[in-house]
Amino acid sequence: MITPEEFKSAFRLHPAGVALITADPGGSPVALTASSVSAVSADPPLAMFSVSALSSSARNLRKADSVVIHLLSADNLDLALLGAASGVDRFADESRWHRLPTGEPVFEEVKTWMRADILHRVDAGGSNVFVVTIVESRVAPDAAMCEGLVYRNRTWHRVDDSTVTSMPELIGASAG
Amino acid sequence: MITPEEFKSAFRLHPAGVALITADPGGSPVALTASSVSAVSADPPLAMFSVSALSSSARNLRKADSVVIHLLSADNLDLALLGAASGVDRFADESRWHRLPTGEPVFEEVKTWMRADILHRVDAGGSNVFVVTIVESRVAPDAAMCEGLVYRNRTWHRVDDSTVTSMPELIGASAG
Repeated sequence: MITPEEFKSAFRLHPAGVALITADPGGSPVALTASSVSAVSADPPLAMFSVSALSSSARNLRKADSVVIHLLSADNLDLALLGAASGVDRFADESRWHRLPTGEPVFEEVKTWMRADILHRVDAGGSNVFVVTIVESRVAPDAAMCEGLVYRNRTWHRVDDSTVTSMPELIGASAG
Repeated sequence: MITPEEFKSAFRLHPAGVALITADPGGSPVALTASSVSAVSADPPLAMFSVSALSSSARNLRKADSVVIHLLSADNLDLALLGAASGVDRFADESRWHRLPTGEPVFEEVKTWMRADILHRVDAGGSNVFVVTIVESRVAPDAAMCEGLVYRNRTWHRVDDSTVTSMPELIGASAG
């Protein structure tokens, strides 16, 4: 096994999309920022994410049956910071969120969010890996106009039309 | 549950880092591109990724006990395309890869790679979620000089110093 320092060094430069995950396992809503959300399967609609089990938000999340996954754009950086801050009431501004009929908190300003039922929870080291079934999704009509938000090397980045790479010349590819 | 089309629409704009995963479950090496690799825990050093179980590479990967995860930078876009191409011998150019003493194929040109033992495999829909223990890592001294590679909206992006976002003004934050 490698050391925690070697591990952090290896993953530090790996870019990741950013999400705010919310839940209400009973009475007290939780929200936390995760850079580990990814699609698993379109049919059935499955996704996954992991959270450290050390925070109080994460301990509450373990009790939840369902979550809302907000896929954040660059416009939502303040929500990413809110969900990562310590010692802050993440639900203090009641104008920004409301409850779905099923009880989960949702921040409607986020262009893309999904409600999901927890299908598997795998305990892995000091963390929990969740595999979830997406039961509802909302993508705002103007979602594609927003810049994407990426976390890399302890910094926040935006991706948009200006960051598209040029394609390499493929060996053996026809000139089309 | 949502439809596959709704699922793809929701995840299309979510940025993801890109990795090439290799293994040799016995005689015939496999390589595939995954945009689902993320860190789970630094101590113990755990990571996760998912792959569709439909491809022949993925079927072979299910038989492996260990993998090499290459975290790709923008310079490695051709490897990302190679690991996603169909009907191509991904190991045809023998000058680009070799075997580790433990048998896994490694593409040394990639600045950051990790060897990992498979700890859990969760069958999820038509996909497999792998939780792995990192047993060895290599980060080239100049890794931080490379642009990151991001997949978003069916396009490849680069992230570097020029894509760092400006920070929002935080409500209640002190001026420090």
